[in-house]
Amino acid sequence: MSERATWEATAIEGLRAAERGAAERLALAIDIGGTKLAAALVEPGGRVAHHDRTHTPVDLDAEGLWRSLLALLDKLVADAGDPPLAGIGVGCGGPMRWPSAEVSPLNIPAWRDFPLRDRLRERYPGLPVRVHNDAICVAVGEHWRGAGRGRGNVLGMVVSTGVGGGLILDGRLVDGASGNAGHIGHVVVDPAGPPCKCGGRGCLEAIARGPGLVAWAQEQGWRPGRTDVTGVELTEDARRGHPVASAAMDRAGRALGIAIASAAHLCDLEVVSVGGGLSQAGPLLFDPLEEALRAHARMDFARQVRVVPAALGQTAGLVGAAALVFAADRYWNAD
Amino acid sequence: MSERATWEATAIEGLRAAERGAAERLALAIDIGGTKLAAALVEPGGRVAHHDRTHTPVDLDAEGLWRSLLALLDKLVADAGDPPLAGIGVGCGGPMRWPSAEVSPLNIPAWRDFPLRDRLRERYPGLPVRVHNDAICVAVGEHWRGAGRGRGNVLGMVVSTGVGGGLILDGRLVDGASGNAGHIGHVVVDPAGPPCKCGGRGCLEAIARGPGLVAWAQEQGWRPGRTDVTGVELTEDARRGHPVASAAMDRAGRALGIAIASAAHLCDLEVVSVGGGLSQAGPLLFDPLEEALRAHARMDFARQVRVVPAALGQTAGLVGAAALVFAADRYWNAD
Repeated sequence: MSERATWEATAIEGLRAAERGAAERLALAIDIGGTKLAAALVEPGGRVAHHDRTHTPVDLDAEGLWRSLLALLDKLVADAGDPPLAGIGVGCGGPMRWPSAEVSPLNIPAWRDFPLRDRLRERYPGLPVRVHNDAICVAVGEHWRGAGRGRGNVLGMVVSTGVGGGLILDGRLVDGASGNAGHIGHVVVDPAGPPCKCGGRGCLEAIARGPGLVAWAQEQGWRPGRTDVTGVELTEDARRGHPVASAAMDRAGRALGIAIASAAHLCDLEVVSVGGGLSQAGPLLFDPLEEALRAHARMDFARQVRVVPAALGQTAGLVGAAALVFAADRYWNAD
Repeated sequence: MSERATWEATAIEGLRAAERGAAERLALAIDIGGTKLAAALVEPGGRVAHHDRTHTPVDLDAEGLWRSLLALLDKLVADAGDPPLAGIGVGCGGPMRWPSAEVSPLNIPAWRDFPLRDRLRERYPGLPVRVHNDAICVAVGEHWRGAGRGRGNVLGMVVSTGVGGGLILDGRLVDGASGNAGHIGHVVVDPAGPPCKCGGRGCLEAIARGPGLVAWAQEQGWRPGRTDVTGVELTEDARRGHPVASAAMDRAGRALGIAIASAAHLCDLEVVSVGGGLSQAGPLLFDPLEEALRAHARMDFARQVRVVPAALGQTAGLVGAAALVFAADRYWNAD
């Protein structure tokens, strides 16, 4: 072989090895919420290869919580045999300054302006570290590998103790001015409705969040067996036919349908995926949702929108966090 | 000079000439509405160099209307000395199949599924022809060279006989599934509100469109001097302090503020520009708008949104149509 041919062969082999390496690398995906810290090693195709989780410690300061997170990550990576990493993707409860990710999760008082991205960059030098809102990661996961797969215009919603979401339009995640696009929970569904924790009134979240539903049902005379109840008990009673519990689910479903009609008109959506604890209620929630949606989404294009249950369950946020690493062309617009 | 150097010099000169030519070429911009047909030759920087307009003929069939449009365009181009064209950009009343632009403008019954894009391509062979909804062209114009210039996340609204808009997010025009993103007029502002022409109830447009306002004011006892009145007379009476006319403007402003709060939360907007006839009402409309917006846009990020009057006036749609030609990287995502 000539010198040039030898050089070319070597270069090509090197490129192929680099490709193999890249294909084998895993994303370290992290999901940080008020009740649990979860982490996973995710393959480039979106399969969760290894995962682990722990309760979010409530009695620690900022550094103690950070050490707990690191312990979870170190154990996960060690248990998996210390594989090469492609990058770090994180979904974290908001609010946060984005994309720098100084995080102040509502339900994690220990972290206020905690420099999560900088800390992870120090811990994993040379690797991309990308942090987004946890509900946005769920939406990205459902778009990448779940209920919104293959569609260009998707709203991914999480209906739980809050109501959040993420917005994929024209095939790309929309960040908005400050990384907060997708906040469907504060779309106004009834300007004369109940006050919202945000300071507004009649927001979707004020009506459809689990604790809001429970409070409304109790005001209306729902008397569950115990005091420490959640949307789970309310859903169970609605299933048994309790009229007030049923009315509460109906009210939440209607509010969701109205908000989705507004979003479908404003954003020309194809699919809305609905996940989170309350979505487990099934037809109790989805039937009134569809009824209100069909009453209000009347322009021809808006009638096309389909509302579907989220497909990925608990791992959606981790899969979405991995997509920030593996499919940055669609889901990561920042530096 | 060597042969190669000669070839390079020739090629560079050719490129420069092509650049000069491209820089000098004008966009032929067209705005097709129920009351007027307007056309302009627009410079690459957005300046309207020549323009002309005519009333939309109401007594012609599809082909007659097409010939009227061609006559307007031919005269405009001839009067300007037949300059070289960079392409054709069109804003047309909806609905339409997009991007193929078979148009069926609500207020132009002569055109139903009229193949506007194909016809313009036949007339101007070899040039790009790009058609979008007229309200979207207004939003694009305001983003490119008007009130939203330099901002990444902008909703451009038109409040007139209808309420329309266009949405620029993360610096790019959002089309949505069928080219209909930006339809703020059908965001629900009061689910128990008046019926809307779309078949829904409580849409922004049902409350804030000029004819809707006039009808409401007349129901409430407003008795203008003549029968054939519009939002213009209503605005004048509100300015004079007529209580019902003032209440009507207040009602429209509040509805706009609520819809904008919802859009600001869902899309994380920086600027909302408000144009169209009713926006001429000034503080009569903008004061109650701001009050409702500030009451409902309470999340920190949503408080940042600014609502401003549109800057370009009547030419916004033409400037936006030209932007479909000159700034396709941001405003044209189709083939």
